[in-house]
Amino acid sequence: GSEFEYSEHPHRRYNPLRGEWILCSPHRAKRPWQGATEEIPPDTRPEYDPNDYLGPGNFRSGGKAQNPNYTDTFVFDNDFMALLPDTPDGSVGEIDKGDLFVARAVKGRCRVVCFSPKLNLTIPEMEREDVVKVVHAWTDEFLRLAKEPYINYVQIFENKGEMMGCSNPHPHGQIWSSGFIPAEAKKELENLKAYEEKHGVGMLEKYVQDELIKKERMVCQNNSFLCVVPFWALWPFETMVISTEKVASLAEMSDRMKEDLADIYQRVTCRYDNLFKTSFPYSMGLRQCPTDGTSHPYSHFYMVFYPPLLRSATVKKFMVGFELLCEGQRDLTAEQAAERLRNLDEVHYRKK
Amino acid sequence: GSEFEYSEHPHRRYNPLRGEWILCSPHRAKRPWQGATEEIPPDTRPEYDPNDYLGPGNFRSGGKAQNPNYTDTFVFDNDFMALLPDTPDGSVGEIDKGDLFVARAVKGRCRVVCFSPKLNLTIPEMEREDVVKVVHAWTDEFLRLAKEPYINYVQIFENKGEMMGCSNPHPHGQIWSSGFIPAEAKKELENLKAYEEKHGVGMLEKYVQDELIKKERMVCQNNSFLCVVPFWALWPFETMVISTEKVASLAEMSDRMKEDLADIYQRVTCRYDNLFKTSFPYSMGLRQCPTDGTSHPYSHFYMVFYPPLLRSATVKKFMVGFELLCEGQRDLTAEQAAERLRNLDEVHYRKK
Ligand SMILES: O=P(O)(O)O[C@H]1O[C@H](CO)[C@@H](O)[C@H](O)[C@H]1O
Ligand SMILES: O=P(O)(O)O[C@H]1O[C@H](CO)[C@@H](O)[C@H](O)[C@H]1O
Repeated sequence: GSEFEYSEHPHRRYNPLRGEWILCSPHRAKRPWQGATEEIPPDTRPEYDPNDYLGPGNFRSGGKAQNPNYTDTFVFDNDFMALLPDTPDGSVGEIDKGDLFVARAVKGRCRVVCFSPKLNLTIPEMEREDVVKVVHAWTDEFLRLAKEPYINYVQIFENKGEMMGCSNPHPHGQIWSSGFIPAEAKKELENLKAYEEKHGVGMLEKYVQDELIKKERMVCQNNSFLCVVPFWALWPFETMVISTEKVASLAEMSDRMKEDLADIYQRVTCRYDNLFKTSFPYSMGLRQCPTDGTSHPYSHFYMVFYPPLLRSATVKKFMVGFELLCEGQRDLTAEQAAERLRNLDEVHYRKK
Repeated sequence: GSEFEYSEHPHRRYNPLRGEWILCSPHRAKRPWQGATEEIPPDTRPEYDPNDYLGPGNFRSGGKAQNPNYTDTFVFDNDFMALLPDTPDGSVGEIDKGDLFVARAVKGRCRVVCFSPKLNLTIPEMEREDVVKVVHAWTDEFLRLAKEPYINYVQIFENKGEMMGCSNPHPHGQIWSSGFIPAEAKKELENLKAYEEKHGVGMLEKYVQDELIKKERMVCQNNSFLCVVPFWALWPFETMVISTEKVASLAEMSDRMKEDLADIYQRVTCRYDNLFKTSFPYSMGLRQCPTDGTSHPYSHFYMVFYPPLLRSATVKKFMVGFELLCEGQRDLTAEQAAERLRNLDEVHYRKK
């Protein structure tokens, strides 16, 4: 006979960006675990390893290309691009006709962004100025790819850690750019547009204002960005870094704002590493406007982190079964996760 | 200057059930791997272990409940339900008003289905008649839960293997039932309805007919079911078992049809085990009609397997980065995967 409290009772939360619900089971964090625990490889990587395909001066996989002796960031075409610039046009089937075998040729280009020459330096442990260089490299790439006529969307992301499918241990991010606007990006654009048209205010502008008042999901902030565990977070310690002003992409950011982006990228990832005293795995991505030549007044830049760890450095959340067949599910609440992240230090545990 | 071929060139395929595209990169299967390889625990489980929380006669986690000395299937309430029958009603926020903090209390009930008393017997190695008992247990549960006024959807699934988040090694499946119709199930129902209304034929009825003619994605079949790697498969060796006749749920199946379901469940999972000579991990789920008291003439029963393994028993596909931010992506084609599965034996490798 108690009242509904979302800190206690099972409920669904609505993600207004995706137009999707997720199931939240706050009472469930205590279930026992006889399942998988992750192997955390001891982090004793050297600064340089001659077998590191992405190291400065080293030969890449396959032995054809050789990396330059780079000294800060190094960006190059992915040797195994998922999308290629020269796919012949073509298509099979028509949705409207009821065909069930529908395929479309796609073009694109995939790039790799090494963060620094050092094999053993991840974002939270790099020098601030070197992280600023990463943000500048992203911006240059974004602008260059945006100019290509066959590219209409540029996805900048980082898969960090083996647990998140990172296939090479050298700290790096990726850029997959494509002729099509990928499904999730498209859906979000439509939802941002519908919201602003209906309510007369940008969805994320309003969201930032609301979170600054409520405070319970805040992690940290600086002059240009706010980091929160979004109300609709799916991954246990998911966070979202939102620009407090509405900008559509890196292309619209001042140098000062780019420094602030580097600042918060480091501070968030440092809190993550400190959470379980481990090099914290995640997928990170930037959400920016499409590069299709039209204007995108509803786009609002943000960065999102999807980290899999749940209870410790070795027990992760699995998005399986119910999650794959039905909808996302989480155990601890966004507010509980935010409180833990908020109370952490911003000095890296390995530097103490 | 070649022609577009979906066996060769990057493309997107359309999933008409979900109304979603997935990216397919057939040329990419050869990229090197310096990333995670999975630990495969040697499968030397005994038939019985006193520490097995789900074993016959044993105490469950927490020590409160004791299992009966069960001899075939054993079904009980999950000790850590994600959904509870007695959540107080309540809600926060209104989507229509533009609120960004929207939550709804939800009710439901979670059940666990132990397949047999034996800790070391998975579906492909069980006796056929014991797998038929599992299908009967599912049916009984489905019917019982369907009658509860607070339950409108029943999701039957199996997370198999540590890699797929199975938190207890005793072979078992789960049932999560809920007052709401989960997002993916709802979307599929809407798409099935729209298709049939527009084209005058059931989407999956047409799909079964088409695949029986094309043959290139077929894995195996029996009198009541066809197993294919669907044209729009996302996971490397994803398969779909579709009833050749349109039935909405287990409740509409004859005993003969249930035997056929057990037959194909075993044959598919046996092929899976034989693929990499390992106990093959996957999430399996049944898609059935909602249990909301209305009729669902568009529902068409199927069973889907989402297995993570890609190259070997130790290298899996990660749905990370681009996949989480943009849309699903796969390397080998559905046709290549089907050919490998089709050519495998249906005698289990450990029985040879
Ligand atoms: O219920 P279990 O086996 O403890 O948990 C497993 O299945 C659930 C339903 O798919 C998931 O939410 C969990 O992440 C997974 O570990
Ligand atoms: O490109 P990589 O690092 O080889 O691969 C990684 O990132 C890709 C993009 O998110 C994913 O498709 C792969 O599954 C993952 O292992």
